[in-house]
Amino acid sequence: MDTVLVDFLESRSENSGNPHMARLVTLLEEFMMGGKRIRPVLTVMGWQAAGGESSDLAAVVRVAASLEMFHAFALIHDDIMDDSDTRRGRPTVHRVLAGERGDDRAERFGMGAAVLLGDLAFAWSDQLLHTANLTAVQSAAVLPLVGEMRTEVMFGQYLDLRATGELTDDVDATLTVNRYKTAKYTVERPLHIGAALAGAGAEALAACSAFALPLGEAFQLRDDLLGVYGDVRDTGKSRLDDLRAGKNTTLVALALRAGDAAQGARLRALIGDPQLDEAGAEEVRALFASTGARDAVERMIDERLRQALRALETAPFTADAVTALKQLAVTATRRNS
Amino acid sequence: MDTVLVDFLESRSENSGNPHMARLVTLLEEFMMGGKRIRPVLTVMGWQAAGGESSDLAAVVRVAASLEMFHAFALIHDDIMDDSDTRRGRPTVHRVLAGERGDDRAERFGMGAAVLLGDLAFAWSDQLLHTANLTAVQSAAVLPLVGEMRTEVMFGQYLDLRATGELTDDVDATLTVNRYKTAKYTVERPLHIGAALAGAGAEALAACSAFALPLGEAFQLRDDLLGVYGDVRDTGKSRLDDLRAGKNTTLVALALRAGDAAQGARLRALIGDPQLDEAGAEEVRALFASTGARDAVERMIDERLRQALRALETAPFTADAVTALKQLAVTATRRNS
Repeated sequence: MDTVLVDFLESRSENSGNPHMARLVTLLEEFMMGGKRIRPVLTVMGWQAAGGESSDLAAVVRVAASLEMFHAFALIHDDIMDDSDTRRGRPTVHRVLAGERGDDRAERFGMGAAVLLGDLAFAWSDQLLHTANLTAVQSAAVLPLVGEMRTEVMFGQYLDLRATGELTDDVDATLTVNRYKTAKYTVERPLHIGAALAGAGAEALAACSAFALPLGEAFQLRDDLLGVYGDVRDTGKSRLDDLRAGKNTTLVALALRAGDAAQGARLRALIGDPQLDEAGAEEVRALFASTGARDAVERMIDERLRQALRALETAPFTADAVTALKQLAVTATRRNS
Repeated sequence: MDTVLVDFLESRSENSGNPHMARLVTLLEEFMMGGKRIRPVLTVMGWQAAGGESSDLAAVVRVAASLEMFHAFALIHDDIMDDSDTRRGRPTVHRVLAGERGDDRAERFGMGAAVLLGDLAFAWSDQLLHTANLTAVQSAAVLPLVGEMRTEVMFGQYLDLRATGELTDDVDATLTVNRYKTAKYTVERPLHIGAALAGAGAEALAACSAFALPLGEAFQLRDDLLGVYGDVRDTGKSRLDDLRAGKNTTLVALALRAGDAAQGARLRALIGDPQLDEAGAEEVRALFASTGARDAVERMIDERLRQALRALETAPFTADAVTALKQLAVTATRRNS
């Protein structure tokens, strides 16, 4: 799949014949080289699960590449909104672009240029999709799913942004955001899209959802934990970002719900403080432990992983796909990066 | 076409069953109600020029609506990058959204939420396109043009952003930005897309370009003048925004080229000053007059309008379309809004 992405990007650079475009393409290419590729992998697995024919492989890989390009768009815009400094172990795109300008407009330029580079990645993900040589039947099945996926992740991001800095103990509300911005976007829709390419019917698509939604929620819950406890050498992201931004994760909501008044007040004072340092973060981590929130999130992950694995038992998938999906479910929820 | 847009947006609101989504949809709907609709009009004209069959009208209108939705995306992001306060006579989307939040995160929230609402409009423009019931032949002709259009406008916006705040007297560089961000995006590609829907061949598409590129350049040159001389009651935009942002328009480049050292120094001090007031803007206008830059831009507009009208004389278009395109060319370059 990486070959498809690199070839596509090189062609964009060459077609333009413009050094500024070449620079943007290089930046995007570098940004895309560190990803976990979870969505493309799931696209291919969904296609295998629904018994896809190997003659369609090239088309499936191109659609998978299109989802990875779309994800580059989503991450670049996400980092702007969260004002993050690092991603995948390197400076975020808006920081790199700001650094290319020395005057007092550097930050605004970096932000605006990164919005545009994200927009380009979005447009190019669509071009990859349109040049995948899908049959009319495949297009009719896949394009509506892609449309829903895009709307869902953007709406999830919007709900997340609304909740940021306005901490509540409403655990269900945090799980709703999780479902839109991660469970559907990262797991369910890529599986659906792959399965639809193989001509999956309603039953197979429903089986994808039964596996994907609990797994996707568990994936995001793991992400919430890694955002606070992860090692930057593994995750590539600072473990202060989420706390400084005041992300209202399920972990935070559980701690607020379980904590007493004094603990709640400390959590509210620390989470969302843009100046929070490592000592303050350590205090938050201690509160997540003493309120039992950390353990509760681990239990929620286990529960959802079991639910996902149970869904595979009755799913009308090929045996090879079931084995691969089981393995993926375990690594996606036990990861440290 | 407005009916298509309103029906589509209402369905997005209803499908979600979520009041936050309903609010976003209403905001986008209100934002879209004041536009000039130049791109959809040109799409229909391109289709008429190439002899489109009336049985295709519904599909053409839906594609036209898709371009208008894409334009909403482009404007919302443009206003964020320029940090503009008003658009179409009302507060810009990021200002409205910032106003919905009272705390010290209001501005960041408004920016992030507007990026996301823009992204949604982009995704939805694609859904309008995919549900236009195009034939396989129409899709194969139109989708690559849409892809190029998107890349061109984003790249043009990027070049524009790079040049903003770094004033030069390089008139050609300003015209290159103009070509990408306006001439191709606003005039050439909508005409191409409409003509392609009617099955236009290479000759008709080339005739579209011969008319569209000079007209599009003239359109942007008029926009540059209106950005400085227009009446906010007509344009809906403050005539201080471009000057405060330090937009490196052709008008500015011509003034810098023609002015003496003292005039150049004043222009550089005033243009790009975020605190510029009406008195400062008046001084800039006086310099545009005394350097002859304003008159020079008017001459460039006339010249390009004549070139566009000349191109129509030999274009293989239907007679009705030629009449309509002539009229549009004159109003688009003589407008005051």
